[in-house]
Amino acid sequence: MTNPATIPDSHRNLLEGPVFAVLTTLMPDYQPQSSVVWADFDGEYVLINTAKGRTKERNMAQRPKVSVLALDTNQPYRWIEVRGEVVEITEEGGVEHIDKLARMYTGQPGYYGYVAPAAQREKETRVICKIKPTRVIAFGA
Amino acid sequence: MTNPATIPDSHRNLLEGPVFAVLTTLMPDYQPQSSVVWADFDGEYVLINTAKGRTKERNMAQRPKVSVLALDTNQPYRWIEVRGEVVEITEEGGVEHIDKLARMYTGQPGYYGYVAPAAQREKETRVICKIKPTRVIAFGA
Repeated sequence: MTNPATIPDSHRNLLEGPVFAVLTTLMPDYQPQSSVVWADFDGEYVLINTAKGRTKERNMAQRPKVSVLALDTNQPYRWIEVRGEVVEITEEGGVEHIDKLARMYTGQPGYYGYVAPAAQREKETRVICKIKPTRVIAFGA
Repeated sequence: MTNPATIPDSHRNLLEGPVFAVLTTLMPDYQPQSSVVWADFDGEYVLINTAKGRTKERNMAQRPKVSVLALDTNQPYRWIEVRGEVVEITEEGGVEHIDKLARMYTGQPGYYGYVAPAAQREKETRVICKIKPTRVIAFGA
């Protein structure tokens, strides 16, 4: 029997970018809150990079249940939903990781000074949010 | 002051289709559950069409808080998030509405017999879910 939390090989590329994903977190009153994010997958966890203190980060720190839906913009009927739980939010490697994502998604050599103003680097703390999949649904071939 | 639940004219077209939207509902344990849907907007409510008894429909009937994120697949940095509450789920006009959406999204003359097998019409009850926006965030120009 297939593990319902396994990312199928057919759709793994949707989580390894550069595919846009919709991350949904929970507000304090359990109102779902969604935003478009860059996504990454390390073979075990879906990785989202954000800045400490943002709404989504505060939500994930308090209420770890999230969903990530990655959509192939060239084939919108091909998508993968990962329901999961945030098991760790870490500053370690946060800046290197946003640089890696920026290269992957935009072709720019780094994040600060290209995607975001260079001065923003001093003002924010980048964190990697590690999401453990608990239920995966793949749609389309 | 702008009403935080108003759909700005700049992004209204994202909810009037044919733009793919991600609908997030809440499972019984408040786990977010997301799927790609066709969306519509009547000037007051965001309208989602689904079939009675499906996971998303059961969730919306029990826990009305949802989010809808509509993404311009040609400009992925232009999107709108609508947080809201499902105020009504009605069978009235459900089949006509899914036919309208099918024409808009696929160019097919109707839903059954084109998008879904004709026999499915007898097996399912289409419903329109009316979502009242409570918080709207528009991103990109």
